[in-house]
Formats: sequence, structure tokens, C-alpha cells
Amino acid sequence: MIAVRSLADNVESLKPFFYPGSVAVIGASREEASIGYRLLESLQGSHFTGTIIPVNPHATEIAGLRTFPSLQDIPSQVDLAVIAVPAGLVLSIIDDCAAKQIPAAILITAGFAETGGIGTSLEEQLRERVRRYGIRLIGPNCFGLMNLDPAIRLNATYTPVIPPVGHVAIASESGGMGLAVVTAATRLNLGLSSLVSVGNHVDVTVNDLLEYWEQDPNIDVILLYLETIVDPPRFRRIAERVGKTKPIVVLKAGRTQAGQSAAGSHTAALATNKAAVDALFAQCGVIQAKTLEEFLALATGFSNQLRPLGRRIGILTNSGGPGVLCADSCSAEGLTVPELSKAAQSALASFLPRMAALKNPVDVIGFASEEQHARAVETMLTSDDLDALIIVHVSVRAKDNEPVATGIMRGIRVARQAGHTKKPVYLCWIAEGDLDRTFTVDSEAIPTYRHPEIPAHIISRAVAYETWRQQPCGRVPTYTDVDLATAKEICTNAFTDRGAGWLTTKETYTLLQAMKIPVVAGDIATSADDAVKLAQDIGYPVAMKLTSHRIVHKTEMGGVQLNLADDQAVRDAFSRIRTILEQAGKLDAMDGVLVQPMLSDGVEVMIGMTRDPLFGPLIAFGLGGIHAEILGDLQFCVTPLTDHDAEAMIRGIKGYRLLTGYRGQPAVDLKAIEEVLLRLSRLVEEIPGISELDLNPIFALPPGQGCRIVDARIRVQPSQPSV
Amino acid sequence: MIAVRSLADNVESLKPFFYPGSVAVIGASREEASIGYRLLESLQGSHFTGTIIPVNPHATEIAGLRTFPSLQDIPSQVDLAVIAVPAGLVLSIIDDCAAKQIPAAILITAGFAETGGIGTSLEEQLRERVRRYGIRLIGPNCFGLMNLDPAIRLNATYTPVIPPVGHVAIASESGGMGLAVVTAATRLNLGLSSLVSVGNHVDVTVNDLLEYWEQDPNIDVILLYLETIVDPPRFRRIAERVGKTKPIVVLKAGRTQAGQSAAGSHTAALATNKAAVDALFAQCGVIQAKTLEEFLALATGFSNQLRPLGRRIGILTNSGGPGVLCADSCSAEGLTVPELSKAAQSALASFLPRMAALKNPVDVIGFASEEQHARAVETMLTSDDLDALIIVHVSVRAKDNEPVATGIMRGIRVARQAGHTKKPVYLCWIAEGDLDRTFTVDSEAIPTYRHPEIPAHIISRAVAYETWRQQPCGRVPTYTDVDLATAKEICTNAFTDRGAGWLTTKETYTLLQAMKIPVVAGDIATSADDAVKLAQDIGYPVAMKLTSHRIVHKTEMGGVQLNLADDQAVRDAFSRIRTILEQAGKLDAMDGVLVQPMLSDGVEVMIGMTRDPLFGPLIAFGLGGIHAEILGDLQFCVTPLTDHDAEAMIRGIKGYRLLTGYRGQPAVDLKAIEEVLLRLSRLVEEIPGISELDLNPIFALPPGQGCRIVDARIRVQPSQPSV
Repeated sequence: MIAVRSLADNVESLKPFFYPGSVAVIGASREEASIGYRLLESLQGSHFTGTIIPVNPHATEIAGLRTFPSLQDIPSQVDLAVIAVPAGLVLSIIDDCAAKQIPAAILITAGFAETGGIGTSLEEQLRERVRRYGIRLIGPNCFGLMNLDPAIRLNATYTPVIPPVGHVAIASESGGMGLAVVTAATRLNLGLSSLVSVGNHVDVTVNDLLEYWEQDPNIDVILLYLETIVDPPRFRRIAERVGKTKPIVVLKAGRTQAGQSAAGSHTAALATNKAAVDALFAQCGVIQAKTLEEFLALATGFSNQLRPLGRRIGILTNSGGPGVLCADSCSAEGLTVPELSKAAQSALASFLPRMAALKNPVDVIGFASEEQHARAVETMLTSDDLDALIIVHVSVRAKDNEPVATGIMRGIRVARQAGHTKKPVYLCWIAEGDLDRTFTVDSEAIPTYRHPEIPAHIISRAVAYETWRQQPCGRVPTYTDVDLATAKEICTNAFTDRGAGWLTTKETYTLLQAMKIPVVAGDIATSADDAVKLAQDIGYPVAMKLTSHRIVHKTEMGGVQLNLADDQAVRDAFSRIRTILEQAGKLDAMDGVLVQPMLSDGVEVMIGMTRDPLFGPLIAFGLGGIHAEILGDLQFCVTPLTDHDAEAMIRGIKGYRLLTGYRGQPAVDLKAIEEVLLRLSRLVEEIPGISELDLNPIFALPPGQGCRIVDARIRVQPSQPSV
Repeated sequence: MIAVRSLADNVESLKPFFYPGSVAVIGASREEASIGYRLLESLQGSHFTGTIIPVNPHATEIAGLRTFPSLQDIPSQVDLAVIAVPAGLVLSIIDDCAAKQIPAAILITAGFAETGGIGTSLEEQLRERVRRYGIRLIGPNCFGLMNLDPAIRLNATYTPVIPPVGHVAIASESGGMGLAVVTAATRLNLGLSSLVSVGNHVDVTVNDLLEYWEQDPNIDVILLYLETIVDPPRFRRIAERVGKTKPIVVLKAGRTQAGQSAAGSHTAALATNKAAVDALFAQCGVIQAKTLEEFLALATGFSNQLRPLGRRIGILTNSGGPGVLCADSCSAEGLTVPELSKAAQSALASFLPRMAALKNPVDVIGFASEEQHARAVETMLTSDDLDALIIVHVSVRAKDNEPVATGIMRGIRVARQAGHTKKPVYLCWIAEGDLDRTFTVDSEAIPTYRHPEIPAHIISRAVAYETWRQQPCGRVPTYTDVDLATAKEICTNAFTDRGAGWLTTKETYTLLQAMKIPVVAGDIATSADDAVKLAQDIGYPVAMKLTSHRIVHKTEMGGVQLNLADDQAVRDAFSRIRTILEQAGKLDAMDGVLVQPMLSDGVEVMIGMTRDPLFGPLIAFGLGGIHAEILGDLQFCVTPLTDHDAEAMIRGIKGYRLLTGYRGQPAVDLKAIEEVLLRLSRLVEEIPGISELDLNPIFALPPGQGCRIVDARIRVQPSQPSV
């Protein structure tokens, strides 16, 4: 049901929101407490360059503007409608917009799906209607839109506050969060360009806006506050493409939502909405902030300074403790604070006080002068020893603030004028009576924080982003050797015959073989004699496992018997399993036993898949045994997996060292594990009826020898409609 | 060489610093840039209630005060000397102080041990001299001292800034950090009482100050900024005692110092200075902040609000997004945001706007009035459903700030007056043009932050502190059944015979048996025939391990042979080990082989010990195998271990669930592991010559069956002098 627009059409259709020649405010009002009043106040206050047309059936003039009783009465063209009328009137206003051929509308009004009940059905009607008319709609239940481009100066929100103008765009699912950013922006010297409160996003989504801002030359950095993610596969595609040129910083609420309710497979039990969100963002290079403060700090840093070309940080301070905390943070963030070259130290010594520390951190001592600050900043910013500079200043007296600030800015200016334009500078400014000072050198805003740990963190994220940005996009391999028809048939037949549930051992193994996923050979016996025959064919020692389409946790109940060395051991094992089931009153759940060669070499790993209702298949990788379940050392990715994703999942677990040769053990065949991940991704993308899957354990063998899946479980259910 | 004072003597000797009747400023000056000038400015500016006496050989009056050429010329008693003269003059000034019988001195002057070289020897002479004279000295290289008690109003620092007056004391090893706290205090509404910059702490240490503040009724909360820890055992004893009545919040620099250089045991390799610091703080209940921001936020919260009695948090907001972020943080911090009772919801519904959310978070919607805010605050603060309240406000327009703030404060006042005095209230205030507003209701400061995640974090720390505070102190058990004489003799003999190095297998086992630490029986064979005899005595299967006082990592080189089922297997294993050593050209390193019963039951755990140069013995506990080494899932404690410490170490590992019965396995005998930890603590406290120790693996058996140490290594070295 999603209207599909081409990229160009989408961008074109959003232009009236950002560059309208005329804006009609429907619900304009003279009552100061009303949103209709505040909208007019905002539009007038921002000196909007177009025409403002109030619409109100009971007035002919509001706020000095000619007012029309309805849209139909307006003689001229209207490019954008901003609607703030009671919810019950909204549908007819939308009809009016269509009649007036208005291409875009912002619907401030609340009382739709967020209130449940009849609001939800009203929202459905609204969606249907704007789709039918082809009107682009932002909202409902939103706070409006700003475009601070001096060419338009559009503030179509109900806050009169205009933040500094710059090159940051923000889309927010919460009006309050948009307000919080606007409120903080002045103090942070954070220059904004566009702000869109998307509300319930019945039509225009964050994905649409990403495409718009991708081509907007005013935008350098994109901020998103999200409570959900609309159409995750599209988000992933767009975000990865846009992120290669413009960093996308996201604050996602609901990160700590409790895990999903108990599920039949371990993967499902361990996979949470948070895991899916984190995976999605990591896979498409989105920069995730964990708190509002980090979100704002990242925005300030990314929008004002280039990304450093390396990890070597210079610290210039007048104060021991805060300088040490900054150096600590650099180290914790994977940055270095290298000793300066002898030449740089001599240069500093020539003008700094005798007691100054010169190695790095450079400590100019409490009372250094304007001139000393200027020359120290210049020296460090032009030094080849460093990739970025952090200045940490604690004032001793308020009257020192001005000369120190002037000195710092002069040092930056001189270095920039000398051609050192690319090295980032960050400030930590702790100055009595002057905490909110901002620093702008020519048109360059210097990100300024109050705590010495923050610049190190932001620089570290910037280095990581730059690394991601420079790597080519991942590739989703297509395997032509797979037999998808067989795999689909097995699932369909199992579901048709028995309904939702686990595949039998035989079905599971046949399906994996059809996908060329390396499952260990083995056959099923239904009697002790059969089991012995199979064991003799395979060769001792063997492993024996209960097969049952009902019992999932076989190990716990004694259904797995390992290292069976001879015929007698096989007979004993068979009767042990039988007896256990008998005593549990579950003998009818026993389909037989699987007899397999006993594997003991290699490192045990596991791969699993579960489906998130929103994000679709979520693939997990970890070491076998307790690592995944107790220690939670798992990596998740959403599908489709790229080759990069598969590689990153394996490298991302804490226990990775165990796979690269540890304590005299050989390394394992990483390429083979990657291939299992990638083939599995293909499988679950092709067959939505597979709801859960565990390959556990998998024995990973030395390079060139591949890996062997020793146990596997697959669950089928009716395919869910795709979102 | 540390002067030992009783608690009462120590406290008494520090009084002149905090309540001097007269202060002499040696090095007082008319030059505005000098510290001597600034000190006079500060003392006068704070309206010090005692007498200020400048000392300067070249003046008879400075800043309107009668000035004396030397201390000897002052006719009256001097209680405190504040010294700011060049380093070279300091020793003779100290002599003058002694002659004048001045009991206490603050030495601002820098140029001592912090500069190395001759500064270090000057500091040694200074220390010797103040000890000899019995003068208490703060500094050198410090920023001074403040006591804001209105009865004294002493600012003996070189900043003129006076922070708000309250009940927080701070000791800082960095003058800059003291300044940073003072600078931030006004904005944070953080009321200070005492501030001491301890500098190089040649005499007065943080430990001394903790004892002083323990008995100071003006002090409720103690902040420490530390770069090192003087006399860690004393710190631990004092901090635990003081912390039971006054929370101690620490910011420790140098937390990310790189790990110690490679060492012979895994424990040593994994133990870092950070691990020791974290362990020490956790063991004595100190509240550790990770950043300056957290330090200040904790101080603000702990000094102004009582600790909540539970984890049920109410959130009152006017703004969706920030409210959601706050709720997210509560959940991430282990707090709950319970749905309010029907009664509370009805009460709220009676006065809030129709669209308000009532369950919790309570969302009053953007434009709620002063009255609505007041009543909502009152309702939530008096509700039995909640243990604490967080108010998150984002202003839509600047002109709404005043009524909302007034409403919030009125709500708090009404609830407090109705007797609801104990429930903490925290604010997140994001208000256009009004970010720095502080909230004080009668004399109660409401901690106010700019980001919605912080209050949840502070409340969570407060709940954890309160839990610690209410538990009784741990007990260090004395084991009367141990044979310390034998243990000591083994170490001494080994060191005398062979110098520093590893004990032999036999020495190791005898020593552990002397401490009643349950090591698995076994005996050493030097030939295959001997080995077979031992194996037959023990009963098959057996394990065989190379014994060598030189080769430490036996497993990697094939020196451990397990599951030997019969005589032939034992012979084969013996010759395999011999061959390996022969091929490595290390046959002479083979002392023999240890033959032990083969254990396979139980869960593998490990215990280790290394000595930190500053903190002394550091004991580690973790699961065996790769968990400790690759995944770093270890818990550390400094010795002596209390019963609480031992219990907390075991419960603290991520893999703890594996010890409590997992997937049908039995639980393990936790008490037995605790006892090994405690006996080991006794051992290494008693024998400082033991430098490293690994018990790995230990098989932990089911409850009542104890545990068995299967492999052990102990290294001896010359005992280090105690610090």
C-alpha cells in the first residue's frame, strides 16, 4: 500500500514544504493561546519571504494580514497549507486543499493514531485521502517545519525561537525533541538549516526527507530523532547512500525496551528490538547517539569541523586535572596523545612560562597570557605531529576569560590563514561567569563543551565515521548453486501437513543441503539395531541425538549422547534416550535418533535467525556453548547480509580471538562461516515462512577445511505480509 | 616513615586550617599578577572573620593591612601560614613557622616533586622538616583552601570566586579541578562548605581530610578528585567507615592507563591499575564517577536530595520525546516507571488537559498552566505508587518559563508541607533563554540538569549507595587451622636456594595444603615406570602434567595429557612429553610429571593473585578456560578480602549463572570457592614474598562437595617494603 515514487519525484514533491511562495494557515487565530496564533507569529517573526495567507471563516484580517474564510476564497495560488483546526474538521480541509490544488500540507492537529480508537480510523481515512489526491502531507500531530535558508526564512512551527543558521537538518518524531534541539542550539553554536517534525508520518517519512536533504546543498549533517523506523529496508538503502556524503546522526528512543517474550529458539530469546535497531544502524553507517547530550555534541562537532585524518590528538590546557581527564578519555576512546617532536617542544618553550609542560598535554600553567595562548594554539595546530587539537581551559578569574578567548581565536585564525585548514579544533571551556561563550573564527564555529571528556569522544566517533565512509559498500552475493524450489517445497509441505512448528530432522537436513549449507551427514534410526548398523557404516566413534518435531531442548533432557565408541555403547545410548522419554511420558514425541560421526575438532560456533515484526530477519552469530546464552556475546545483523556484514559479525564478537588461533590451536576457516551466514541470509529472504532457525553447534575447522553444522532447527509459520 | 596519629589527634591538628583566628600570608604582594596579591584579595573578598596578616620584607602596609617584614616580627599569635614565596625560600619560611609556633601551613608554591630532579629532593627535605617540627602542611603545589562556614568565611585560595554555600566538601589533587568545581557550582546550585587543594600532599592527605570531615557537622557529602591514592589500606578503612554516614564521590584520573607489561601469570597480565582502583572503591562503598560531568551531577544529587527508598520512578513531562528518553534511561538503569494507580490517574484527570497522558510518564501536554503543573507535581510527589519524581520540561516559548517554574516549585512546597519530605525530586529543564535556572524550594535545592537521562542515572546510583550503606561491614575471617610457618618456610627456602622464580610443583602443593586450600592429590614421577605405579595407586583414568620450575605455560607446549585410561596410555603420554621437550631442547627443564586422578565433573573456575606496586595483592576470580583470558570476565578485589568481598566477586562475573545450575547441571559449592578466596587472601597478606599466584583450573563441585584445585603456580620474589 506504500505509494512508490522515484527519487526525483519524491524530491520534487517535497520542494513546496521547503520553498513555498505562499503559505496558507488554516485555523489562523487572534487568540494568543491558540496554535493558529502562534503559527502566524512564527511566520511573521522569521520574516518569511513569501506570502502568508490566514484562513479563518470568522475574520477578514488577522495580525495585519488579509484573511480568507476558506481556501476556495483565496484568489491566488497556495503552495503550502499549514493546518491547525480541530481533528474533526481535518478531512474536509484536505478536500479543500485538493480542490485548491495545493501540493503540500503540514498538519499540526493532534488526536489521530496516537490516541488510539477513533483517532486511528481517522488517520486511516486521512492517509487514504492524501494518497488519492496526491497531496504530500507532513504530520498529523506535529510541531511544524523550519527552513532557515536566508532565501526563504520559513518558520512554520509554533515556537517563535530561531536557532543559529547553519547546515544541519533535523527530522524528529517528537515535537518536544525538536524544541529541545532548537533551545540548545544557541548555546552550542549549532547552526541549523531545516527542521521537520514528522509527527505520525502518515505520508512524508524520515526516508523521504533523507532523499530530499541528500540533494540540498545547504545541508551538511542530518540529525534524526526516531521512535520507530518506517520501512527499515528502504531506510537502510537510503541511509547508506546518503551517509557516504552527509553524516547521519540518530537518537533512537525505546532502546531499552524489554526483550521479546520467551521464544522457542535461543536466537529469538536473545534478539531484541534494540539488537535489530543497533544492527541496522551499524550496517548502514548511521552514527547512533545514546543520550540527548551525545546527540547534540555529535551534531555540533560533525557540522562544524572536518573529520580528522588520524588518531593523534594534541591537548593544550592551563590546568592539570581537566587536561589529565581529557588525555584519559582520548586513551579510552582509542586515540593517542603522542609526545610532540623536539622541534615543536622547542618552539613552545621559546614563549611559554618556564614551568609549562611541553610534551603533550601541553600545560601553559594557570596564568598564561593572550599572546602565549595564541602562539601555543598556532604551534600545535600547524604541527605535523597531530591530527586534531583539543583545548581545555579552566579560568582562574573571570577577568582572564576575555584575553584567553581572544588568544585562542587568534591562534586558530593564524593557523587557518597559513593554510592549516583541515585539522579539527575542539574546546572545553570552564570559565567562571562565562560558561556559555561560543567561539567563531571567521565563519568557522569551534565546537565548545563544558566537560573535557566530550571532545575526545566526538573525535573518536568522527574517525570511525570517516573510516566507514571511505570503505566501499558491501555486496549481497547471489548463489546460483542453491535449490530454492526444494527448500520452499519442504517448508510449504511441512506447514500444510502439520501447521506452524519445527521441521523434522530429515526435513531440516534436506533443506540445508539444498542451500549448500554444510550440515554433517547422518541418518535416522528408529531402533537400536538400526542405530548400530548406521554407526558401523559411519565408523566409530559416533554421536546419537533424539529426533523429535516436538522436543526442542534435547540436551537438557538427556537426548544427546556423545562419543559412543562401540556397538554396545550405541545400544545403551538408544535405550537411555528411550527410557528418559518413557519416564517423562513423552515416548510418542520420539521420531527416532540421528546417528552422526562424532566431531571433536574445531571451534564451536553458532548461527541463528529470528524475525523481528518490524525489521524482518535478524541473523545472529556467536561462539557455541554458554557464550551466546549466558555471556550474550552475540552479533546481530538484519538481512540481506552483505559480505562486509558477514565479516563484521564474525570479527565483532568478544571471543573473536578464539577463531584466529589461540594457545596453539589452529585458526578457523572464517570464509566458510561467512558463506554460511550469507547463504542463510539468502534462504530467509526467499522464504518468509521460516520464522526461527538455529544452527548450533557448528564446528569451525582450520582454513580450507570449512565448517560442519552438527545440529540444526528450523521453524515454519504462515508467512507474514511484508511491511 | 608515615607519622601515625590517632583519629582524635589528626582531627584536632587539622582544625587550624579550617578555623584559624589569624592567617599570615607570606609573600603577600601589591603586584596584581602575583599569587600573594590574589590571596589577600580572596581573604578580604570572602570577609574572613579572623585577622589577615601580610608578611613582606619590603612593605609596611598592603591592601590596607599592617604588614610585617617577617613572621618573627608579628607580635600576636598566628594560627595558619599561607605561603607563596619562591621554592628556594620555602625551607627557611618553614623554620620561621616553627620558631613562631604556627601549627598549620598551606604551601601554594610549586617547583617540588612535580618537576622532578632537585624539586624532588627539596620536597624530601620539606617533608622531613614539617615532620620534625610537627607542623601540619597542605601542599606544596596547591591552590589553597576554602571554608565557607558563615562563622569563618575563609577563602585562602587564589580564586576570588565564592561558590554557593552548602554542605559539600571537596579535596582535589588538581587545583584546576577545584576551580572547575567552583566554576560549575553556581550554575548547578551545588552548595559547598570546604574545598582543599592537596597538591603534592607531603603531609596532609585525603585520608586525613576524610577523618576531619567525618566529624564536621557542616559536611553531608564528600567529593574527591584523585590522581593517586595515598596508603590504600588506610583509605579503604576510613572510606568505608565515613561512607556509612556521608557518601564519598570520587573522580579518579588515570583510569585508562595501559595494562601492566607482560607478566608470567595470566592474572598479572589481566590486572591493571584500573582494576585495582575499581576494586578498592567498590569494596569500600565509594561512589565512582567516570567523567567530570557525572562527578558534578552526583554531587548535586547526593547533596540536595535524600536517597530514594525504592526504584519506582514517576516522570512528569510536557513533552513526548524527552519524557521517553527519561523512561528509557530509568529502564536501562534498573529503575521502574510503574503505571500509576487508578486513584492517582483520576486525580490527575480532574485538572489536566483532556489529551494528557496519565499512566506514567504523565504528559501534561505542551501548554499546561502554572496551576496544572503545581497540582500534577503535588499529586505525584504525594502518591504512594512512587519512590522518586523526575520532572522533564521543554519550554515552547520563553514566556511560559516563569509560570511553569513557579508551578513546579509550588507543587513541591505543598507536598513537603503536607509531610512528604523524603521523596527525591529531580528536574530536567530545557527552557529557551533560561537554561541555567536553579530551583530552590524553601532551603531545599532541586537538582536540575539539562538532559533527561541524567536524573535516572543519579537516582540509580543513590539507590545502590543506600543498599550498600544499609548492609553491615564485611568481616575478614581468621583461619586458625592454617600452618603459616610451613608456608613461609617453603617460600623463604625457595627464594634462598634459587632466587626469584616459580615454586616447584611439590612446593606449591605442600604450601597450599598447609593453608588448607583444597588442591588435588597427586605425586611426581620421574620415569614412565614410576608414573604407571602412581597411576595404578590412584586408579584410572589419570591426568599427567609436566612439572618444571622453568616452563610455565605447559598446556600450549603439550605438557598436559588428560584422560589416560591404562598403563600403556600412561607410558605413551610420558614419552610424548619427553619427546616434546627433547625436540625443543629443553629436556633439562623437566623435573618430572605430576600424576593426578582425572577430574571431569564440576564447573571450571580460576583464582589468581598479583601484586600492584601501590595497592598490594589483587585477587582475581573468573570462570576457567577462555572466559578470563579472552573475554575478560574477571572480578578483582584488593586484600584483605572480607566475606562480602568474596561473595561479591563470585556473583559479579557475567558467567555467574553457570555456577547456579544451568541447563540441567547441578549448582556448585559457592561457599567452598569463597573459602579458597579468603584463605588465599590470608596467605598473600601474610607472605609478601609471594608475587604471583594462579589456581587454574579449579573444579567447583556441587554444594557440600567443595572444589578441587587441579593446577597451581606460585611465584616468589624478594618481599617489597610496605608502602
